[in-house]
Amino acid sequence: MRTVSAYAAPSATEPLIATTIERRDVGPNDVLIDIKFAGICHSDIHTVRGEWGGQQFPLTPGHEIAGIVAEVGSNVTKHTVGDRVGVGCLVNSCGECTSCLAGLEQHCLNGNVGTYGAVDRDGTITQGGYSSHVVVNENFVLNIPEGIDLDVAAPLLCAGITTYSPLRHWGVGPGTRVAIVGLGGLGHMGVKIASALGAEVTVLSQTLNKKEDGLKLGADHYYATGDPETFTKLAGSFDFILNTVSAAIDINAYLRLLAIDGVMVNVGAPAEPLPVNAFSLIGGRRSFAGSNIGGIAETQEMLNFCAEHGFGAEIEVISADQINEAYERVLRSDVRYRFVIDTATLPAVGA
Amino acid sequence: MRTVSAYAAPSATEPLIATTIERRDVGPNDVLIDIKFAGICHSDIHTVRGEWGGQQFPLTPGHEIAGIVAEVGSNVTKHTVGDRVGVGCLVNSCGECTSCLAGLEQHCLNGNVGTYGAVDRDGTITQGGYSSHVVVNENFVLNIPEGIDLDVAAPLLCAGITTYSPLRHWGVGPGTRVAIVGLGGLGHMGVKIASALGAEVTVLSQTLNKKEDGLKLGADHYYATGDPETFTKLAGSFDFILNTVSAAIDINAYLRLLAIDGVMVNVGAPAEPLPVNAFSLIGGRRSFAGSNIGGIAETQEMLNFCAEHGFGAEIEVISADQINEAYERVLRSDVRYRFVIDTATLPAVGA
Repeated sequence: MRTVSAYAAPSATEPLIATTIERRDVGPNDVLIDIKFAGICHSDIHTVRGEWGGQQFPLTPGHEIAGIVAEVGSNVTKHTVGDRVGVGCLVNSCGECTSCLAGLEQHCLNGNVGTYGAVDRDGTITQGGYSSHVVVNENFVLNIPEGIDLDVAAPLLCAGITTYSPLRHWGVGPGTRVAIVGLGGLGHMGVKIASALGAEVTVLSQTLNKKEDGLKLGADHYYATGDPETFTKLAGSFDFILNTVSAAIDINAYLRLLAIDGVMVNVGAPAEPLPVNAFSLIGGRRSFAGSNIGGIAETQEMLNFCAEHGFGAEIEVISADQINEAYERVLRSDVRYRFVIDTATLPAVGA
Repeated sequence: MRTVSAYAAPSATEPLIATTIERRDVGPNDVLIDIKFAGICHSDIHTVRGEWGGQQFPLTPGHEIAGIVAEVGSNVTKHTVGDRVGVGCLVNSCGECTSCLAGLEQHCLNGNVGTYGAVDRDGTITQGGYSSHVVVNENFVLNIPEGIDLDVAAPLLCAGITTYSPLRHWGVGPGTRVAIVGLGGLGHMGVKIASALGAEVTVLSQTLNKKEDGLKLGADHYYATGDPETFTKLAGSFDFILNTVSAAIDINAYLRLLAIDGVMVNVGAPAEPLPVNAFSLIGGRRSFAGSNIGGIAETQEMLNFCAEHGFGAEIEVISADQINEAYERVLRSDVRYRFVIDTATLPAVGA
């Protein structure tokens, strides 16, 4: 066990504070990572505030982790000291079920282990990336290719794979007419990746406030969903819609934007059910689907893809003492497009 | 123009009555069909009662038509006098849009022409198959292969293609675990076709009343959805669910029956929206989709498939004067599994 510096939520109703947490000893299959940067994901806020179910506190969130390998266990073959690495939303899975064998660890039938707030194989509760160090099984540690800086790489581990996986699974590429709904942390990665895949990309955002950004990120078109004209004008015009918005939307209005055989995929999960009119689907053999992050091999593929195309996330680097303020700004959608914590600003242990 | 015998609804609130209707002259591309049998589809009842929107009355329903070619136009090449033929839900489409060119006439972007209650290219309102004769463009006339009697063939033109098309589109075959929800006119065809495609077929019906029938039709398993145990026991166990029920169901309970990457397809359209919990989809990269009949080429493929496998629909042949009683029995689900009108029982014109 080692004591490391971290930020943690003492309860669902208090701000995060500087603290220390324990990390397990480096086992034979483990990698010790010296964390350099940790992204702030909207789901961190949902989770520490208990909005997605009860948690055991104190809790250190963070599942967009980038750093340097500081130590490896005796059996480790995939990583060596000094490697630039990342950890995303998962730190373990059974490895034996049909999902794991298919590279879909996020759908492990025996339950995977989330990077924070989950019961680990040893019975402890996992603690996330707002911290100086983390110990992770080598199979859940990704290589961050040269060509992506660690700060802009961190958000790829959740926002990147969450958008990359459905875009790839549903075969988006040249000739595909794609709409990305929402231009936040997820949406801006959706635009970059869909554009790099060669698709014709349209952003559907509430207003035109971020239009200039959207076009710079790679979008070909940009429409305001606050304008009812948008839904008339674009009816039947998309092969694929990626909905990154967690707020409730008029689902049938969006389904009508799909062409014949079009697919709309939610990666955001509104708390309220979405009232789907079956005619919206039957009318054009349309599908409404969901997607949850991606598997480990696919996450590595995504990192390689981003490196080849020379991009990471658009970020605003903050110090650890700005985390609570950043949370408020995320809730106001006042971030372009991801906050990343510089973990060098964490207080030293014992300070 | 010719005057032919038919049954028609005088209004949305009156029973159907024996009458005569006009059929157009046989144009150069038309086929005159001497109708032998016409199936009764649940949608006939919805339509003539105005439940799916206003109609122009009197209206003759019927889009499950089987008969013999009695006359062909000068340009007709696909059919000759004496051929055994069928007509389904469509009698025309633009033939030029991307959907039509892709063999998806049911999704014609310029609007297809339904077999009854639709505005035809000449401005008249189409009249359906509860009639002695019909004139149809040769491209919308299907060949009924030897080996299927005309009476059991008639329901294939709607119930057959409505279930065959999604089963084929989503690649159901050997190794696919399929559930068919509802064992009515559509459901019983779904069971026969999925079974003939080599899938492992489970019927999900409200009760076990039709279990013996279901197994005889080809199902491997049969469960009652009225028993909450069913939803626990079968969680995550289907690759494909075909929902043939038009009544509102607990959609999230059914989505949880899907395995990872599973697809649930509605061919029935409940009047009320279905409240889909996004987590039900995201949890297993599941899809909820819709499907509407099938294209003309695929309908022919389905007829050939049924002939090769030696089956038609399970039917109860009725005389024309039993139509109104049959409607009441359909509404009570008291039919195994399709009523088919013997058009020889229509009164002669002038009688």
